[in-house]
Amino acid sequence: MNKTPHLLLASKSPRRQQILHDAGFDFDFVEIDAPEDFSSHLLPSKICELLAIQKSEHYLLPIKTSILVTADTIVYVNGKVLNKPNDRNEAFAMLTELSGITHKVYTGVCLRNDTKKHVFHDCTAVTFYPLTADQICYYIDTFDPYDKAGSYGVQDWMGYVGVKNIDGCFYNVMGFPMAKFYRELSAF
Amino acid sequence: MNKTPHLLLASKSPRRQQILHDAGFDFDFVEIDAPEDFSSHLLPSKICELLAIQKSEHYLLPIKTSILVTADTIVYVNGKVLNKPNDRNEAFAMLTELSGITHKVYTGVCLRNDTKKHVFHDCTAVTFYPLTADQICYYIDTFDPYDKAGSYGVQDWMGYVGVKNIDGCFYNVMGFPMAKFYRELSAF
Repeated sequence: MNKTPHLLLASKSPRRQQILHDAGFDFDFVEIDAPEDFSSHLLPSKICELLAIQKSEHYLLPIKTSILVTADTIVYVNGKVLNKPNDRNEAFAMLTELSGITHKVYTGVCLRNDTKKHVFHDCTAVTFYPLTADQICYYIDTFDPYDKAGSYGVQDWMGYVGVKNIDGCFYNVMGFPMAKFYRELSAF
Repeated sequence: MNKTPHLLLASKSPRRQQILHDAGFDFDFVEIDAPEDFSSHLLPSKICELLAIQKSEHYLLPIKTSILVTADTIVYVNGKVLNKPNDRNEAFAMLTELSGITHKVYTGVCLRNDTKKHVFHDCTAVTFYPLTADQICYYIDTFDPYDKAGSYGVQDWMGYVGVKNIDGCFYNVMGFPMAKFYRELSAF
C-alpha cells in the first residue's frame, strides 16, 4: 500500500477525527471558524459542497506538502435542511419529523492545497422506524444530541435502535464518506 | 423507557457483545458449542435461522427469568455461503470474489426461554468497490480477518475503504441486527 499523504483536518467533529484515524490516515487538526450561511433555495448536494468550500477558503496559511480537508454534513428531509438543535424542544421536533420516514444525509468534502482544489459529496438515505415520544425523550435526555445535525448519531443508541435501513455509505451518515474520500484523494 | 430484560448471550463474537452493550442491554455471556452443519440446498435466510436454533438447543440449563439469545451470520454470494477463512489463500479468494460486486449478509437470531422460542433473520446487501490485489493483501496481513465470515469486518479498514454501499441494517453486517432485535424482543 502506498503511504497516504499528510492531511490537515479542519473539523471539530470527534466522529470525523475517529473515522480518519481508524482508516489509518495521518493528520493534524486545524481550527477554522467559517460562517455557515447558505441559500435554502440551493440543492442539498450544492449546499454541503459550498459549506465545505467556505470552510476551506477561511484557512489562510500556505498548504505546501499537506492536503487541507474540510467537510460539512447536512440532514435533509421534506425539502429542508435540519441543523444542530438549539434546545430540547427543537431536538424533539426534529426526531418527531424523522420518525417513520426516509431522510437523506449529505456530506460535502473539499480537498485543497496551494495549487488545486477539489470538491465532492456523498448522499445516504436513512429510514427510521416509527419512534414513540418516550423513546425520543429517553434519547435526548441520555445522549444530548445537541452537536449533531438532525439531532441523532447513527453510531449511538438511536442508530442501534431507531434506524431501520441505510442505503449508501454508513460512514457518510457519521459525518465522513470515507470510501469515496479514499478514491477522490488518490485521484487528487 | 421500560427496563430491558436480562439476556443470556451465547456468542464468542466481540462485535455482538459490543453492540448489545452499546445499545444498553444487560447480559451475561454463556458458552455453547454447537455444530455448524447445514444443507447448502437451503435458502440463506433458512440456513442462518437454523444455525441460530441449533445453538439455542445446545443450551441445556433452565431459562426462567432471562432470555437466551443465539445468532449466526453468513455471507452469501454467487449462490453459496462464505464461511470464516481457514488460511491466507482462502481469505484472498473470498475478498477477490467479493470485489466490485454486491453480496448479502444474513443474520439469524433465536430468542428462547423455558416457555417459548422465536426465530427471525435480517438481510443486508453490501456492495464493494473493485479491490486491488495490493489492497486485499494489505488488509489480510494487517487485520487477520480469520474470525470473520467472508473475510472482512465492516467496522474496520475494509468497511471504511472498500464498501461502496450498504442497503439494510449496518449492524446486521457487523453480526447483529439490533434495530430488528429490539422490536422482536419487545414482542417476545
